Amino acid sequence: MIEKNQIMRILETYDLDKLAIATVCSHSSLQIFDGARKEGFKTIGICVKKPPKFYDAFPKAKPDEFIVVDSYQDIPSIAEQLVMKNAIVVPHGSFVEYLGTDKFTDFPVPTFGNRKVLEWESDRNKEREWLEGAGIHMPKLVKPEDIDGPVMVKYHGAKGGRGFFIAKNYEEFLENVDKTLKYNIQEFIVGTRYYLHFFYSPLKTEGYTISTGVLEMLSMDRRVESNADEIFRLGSPRELEDAGIHPTYVVTGNVPLVARESLLPLIFELGERVVEESLELFDGMIGPFCLETVFTDKLEIKVFEISARIVAGTNLYPSGSPYSDLIEPGLSTGRRIAQEISLARKMKQLDKILS
Amino acid sequence: MIEKNQIMRILETYDLDKLAIATVCSHSSLQIFDGARKEGFKTIGICVKKPPKFYDAFPKAKPDEFIVVDSYQDIPSIAEQLVMKNAIVVPHGSFVEYLGTDKFTDFPVPTFGNRKVLEWESDRNKEREWLEGAGIHMPKLVKPEDIDGPVMVKYHGAKGGRGFFIAKNYEEFLENVDKTLKYNIQEFIVGTRYYLHFFYSPLKTEGYTISTGVLEMLSMDRRVESNADEIFRLGSPRELEDAGIHPTYVVTGNVPLVARESLLPLIFELGERVVEESLELFDGMIGPFCLETVFTDKLEIKVFEISARIVAGTNLYPSGSPYSDLIEPGLSTGRRIAQEISLARKMKQLDKILS
Amino acid sequence: MIEKNQIMRILETYDLDKLAIATVCSHSSLQIFDGARKEGFKTIGICVKKPPKFYDAFPKAKPDEFIVVDSYQDIPSIAEQLVMKNAIVVPHGSFVEYLGTDKFTDFPVPTFGNRKVLEWESDRNKEREWLEGAGIHMPKLVKPEDIDGPVMVKYHGAKGGRGFFIAKNYEEFLENVDKTLKYNIQEFIVGTRYYLHFFYSPLKTEGYTISTGVLEMLSMDRRVESNADEIFRLGSPRELEDAGIHPTYVVTGNVPLVARESLLPLIFELGERVVEESLELFDGMIGPFCLETVFTDKLEIKVFEISARIVAGTNLYPSGSPYSDLIEPGLSTGRRIAQEISLARKMKQLDKILS
Repeated sequence: MIEKNQIMRILETYDLDKLAIATVCSHSSLQIFDGARKEGFKTIGICVKKPPKFYDAFPKAKPDEFIVVDSYQDIPSIAEQLVMKNAIVVPHGSFVEYLGTDKFTDFPVPTFGNRKVLEWESDRNKEREWLEGAGIHMPKLVKPEDIDGPVMVKYHGAKGGRGFFIAKNYEEFLENVDKTLKYNIQEFIVGTRYYLHFFYSPLKTEGYTISTGVLEMLSMDRRVESNADEIFRLGSPRELEDAGIHPTYVVTGNVPLVARESLLPLIFELGERVVEESLELFDGMIGPFCLETVFTDKLEIKVFEISARIVAGTNLYPSGSPYSDLIEPGLSTGRRIAQEISLARKMKQLDKILS
Repeated sequence: MIEKNQIMRILETYDLDKLAIATVCSHSSLQIFDGARKEGFKTIGICVKKPPKFYDAFPKAKPDEFIVVDSYQDIPSIAEQLVMKNAIVVPHGSFVEYLGTDKFTDFPVPTFGNRKVLEWESDRNKEREWLEGAGIHMPKLVKPEDIDGPVMVKYHGAKGGRGFFIAKNYEEFLENVDKTLKYNIQEFIVGTRYYLHFFYSPLKTEGYTISTGVLEMLSMDRRVESNADEIFRLGSPRELEDAGIHPTYVVTGNVPLVARESLLPLIFELGERVVEESLELFDGMIGPFCLETVFTDKLEIKVFEISARIVAGTNLYPSGSPYSDLIEPGLSTGRRIAQEISLARKMKQLDKILS
Repeated sequence: MIEKNQIMRILETYDLDKLAIATVCSHSSLQIFDGARKEGFKTIGICVKKPPKFYDAFPKAKPDEFIVVDSYQDIPSIAEQLVMKNAIVVPHGSFVEYLGTDKFTDFPVPTFGNRKVLEWESDRNKEREWLEGAGIHMPKLVKPEDIDGPVMVKYHGAKGGRGFFIAKNYEEFLENVDKTLKYNIQEFIVGTRYYLHFFYSPLKTEGYTISTGVLEMLSMDRRVESNADEIFRLGSPRELEDAGIHPTYVVTGNVPLVARESLLPLIFELGERVVEESLELFDGMIGPFCLETVFTDKLEIKVFEISARIVAGTNLYPSGSPYSDLIEPGLSTGRRIAQEISLARKMKQLDKILS
């Protein structure tokens, strides 16, 4: 991983009055570019082969400039170019995925957030160590022989919502499992899913303060999963199994929602614990993050995963959400990121939010 | 119940230029405080033990002042304090539930809306008398021996979405019912749920006028119920029953929606009838109310319950809804309440909206 | 069908500085009137018997004037009146349905969009010819004997979501089909539904340009279908069938959503192809249209139908959507239509968008 002081030396070459915000043209880039422009930043879109035409349809979100690469693997080759343009990279999920973890962590361009978080987030064991260390309730890991209720089975390396299955009990597990693959088994939490979009600022001093900085909750969504979300129209899981049809959990989009207000204290507590633990483990997770949760009928919140950067569910809210509007009307997560960069520049503390 | 003229005498002691809006810190309080401030009112949050920290995260909605009680049961002890601060209480569902019906109806502080509605709303028989008297179609009550289709069985005192079950027929009813408890049985209406957020103003003269005042429709939502909303991923009701897993209907949040425009005449007719009947029965239900409905595939609307005050589904719309924006851009129910108080003050008719 | 040059001769009698926008009071009329007024047009609501009272509740969207007819069949009798008032008709789905295809195509009043599209849209075979000619993937038509997976069976003339059923396989098809009726059988695509709201402008030159004009994507929704969307609470399709209860697909409303950003290139490609093909087949589909799609877990998009005008799902967004806000904050489809008329007037090219 590139050293922080290397990044800071690169930053010393920057004309801070001409900072640009750069990201890969996918995932949540419309919102990131729109938000950056609203805060007065120049914007740079990194794309493969040629600029995606669809940006022409969204003039508010079209980046000022494109940098074209042959493949995402070639992004390291444009590092110097980005540096010349005083660019700060805002990494989203696809940015990290397309580039690959190693290339991303080595990428010699100042990047919003703490890249150390990747190590903790991308390894399921370390993720569990982090979250459970924070006192978060996660679905329990279960050994095959201990299955005594519904479980979710995930094959290793499963991606994009494939390679999962749900079993109501041990018999169903046995019927469905492919033992030639590696897998782990989690308790299946019966409830409803909420994806909570937080933002941690190490710079702000007013707001929901934690040990250092403040925690914000900008919005929520529920992911739309294909085909699981509408497959009930065709049959129950058992009926479908008999017909050789299997539910899958590929995310195709998002719907907006809000949570019971009486759950907000618990929601903030979860966010706070996760950040505090991250501060102890790896100097903290900076900026946006998402807790992927299930709310049970006992009004408990179980966290099944964390995303340590902007999630695509925030794309619902380029002009504000029922929560962010109570901070500042029209505030998106993309814009909030740009504000944090702006604030750090003003406070001369860019080192606190970049890596 | 405290007499209206007692409340009016208390109100005479108020400095009407310094009215404050007060409510319990839960349920829909963010929106109530945000709306009140936008209309120029001071805001007071009533909370237990200490001010909830989460308000710090939403500066637009954080009340100007907190009044701390040891428990919700102690709210009566702060009546005098609220009166000294020229406070008008805006009661939401949790306010009434936490304080208890008796203490709420006796609470000697001017309160937005007509407290007499509680008597009609909290007793299932009187609620039915009211709604059916208004010509509203409710799910039929069924005797066990008359079950000849799907039914919803509710145990008495069932709260928060537990203590219900659905049976497709008499056999399923018998299999599942706990006869040691009191229960009632309603026809289960097959359709989709819509929660319609109305507002009745006895003061306004322009708009959708009814016998006295006007009716508004500010927004709609669908409640997210845990675990019923996603349990189909695990199995069908029958499959789950065999596995000893039961659907529950605890509300964890809300999703936004709109209705077919061609249903708006019927929607307004339902709202109008309910208000007209309330005017006859108990001098009217003032301010926000919600019809909890099912839209069938014949485009009929069945009402299964009424909430005679602001509902949490309106929390989706602190900055306006697809409907309220056509009244006034950015209008929330919380803000609409504040506007009504403001209007009544200006018209010197606070007696018409307080009790 | 009325000839375009007849319409243009009528238009020559218009005072273009006093154009009015007229539509039938239903479907998406609130949004159309609201949008027209925001762009400075006078608005005219066409209604049966008397003006619908519910408009009084939405002052921003209440038309400036109503024209009352005895029945929708009588709309042709007000053509002259509309012409005297310099009216341009904005047809929505109910407008066309209520008036009837023949009367609509003959209606001698300048109408937004290309009326020739109706011929291609209202005939399932021609619709398929159009879309498949454009290279769009539609669910395959299947012969009964070839059923080898899930299918959707639609009876001819089925309307409003009734007269459909889903079968998982050939056996279920046989059990359920009513062979006394005409029907067709389509492959059932397992996935999640997205309704994509496009706008094609033959006039604009900046944006997502296609062979002539530009393509915009203004918003998306998912239709709420009664009773199919919540019937799983009662039982699985097979369990319900045994109980004599059948799912139906009547649209009662809409929920908002967004799609994965990485699907936007494909989404625009689909819209572009459909417009290009329409330009070849019948001089193009002008203005708003909707692709009714299923997103599969392979991130393919199958189109099961097209609506060649404003759809009711856009009613979610009278004040802008997560997409249209990136074009112009607060932009609705209704307002976009008014902008196009305004632009055509300014460019003296009303002939390009009216028929």
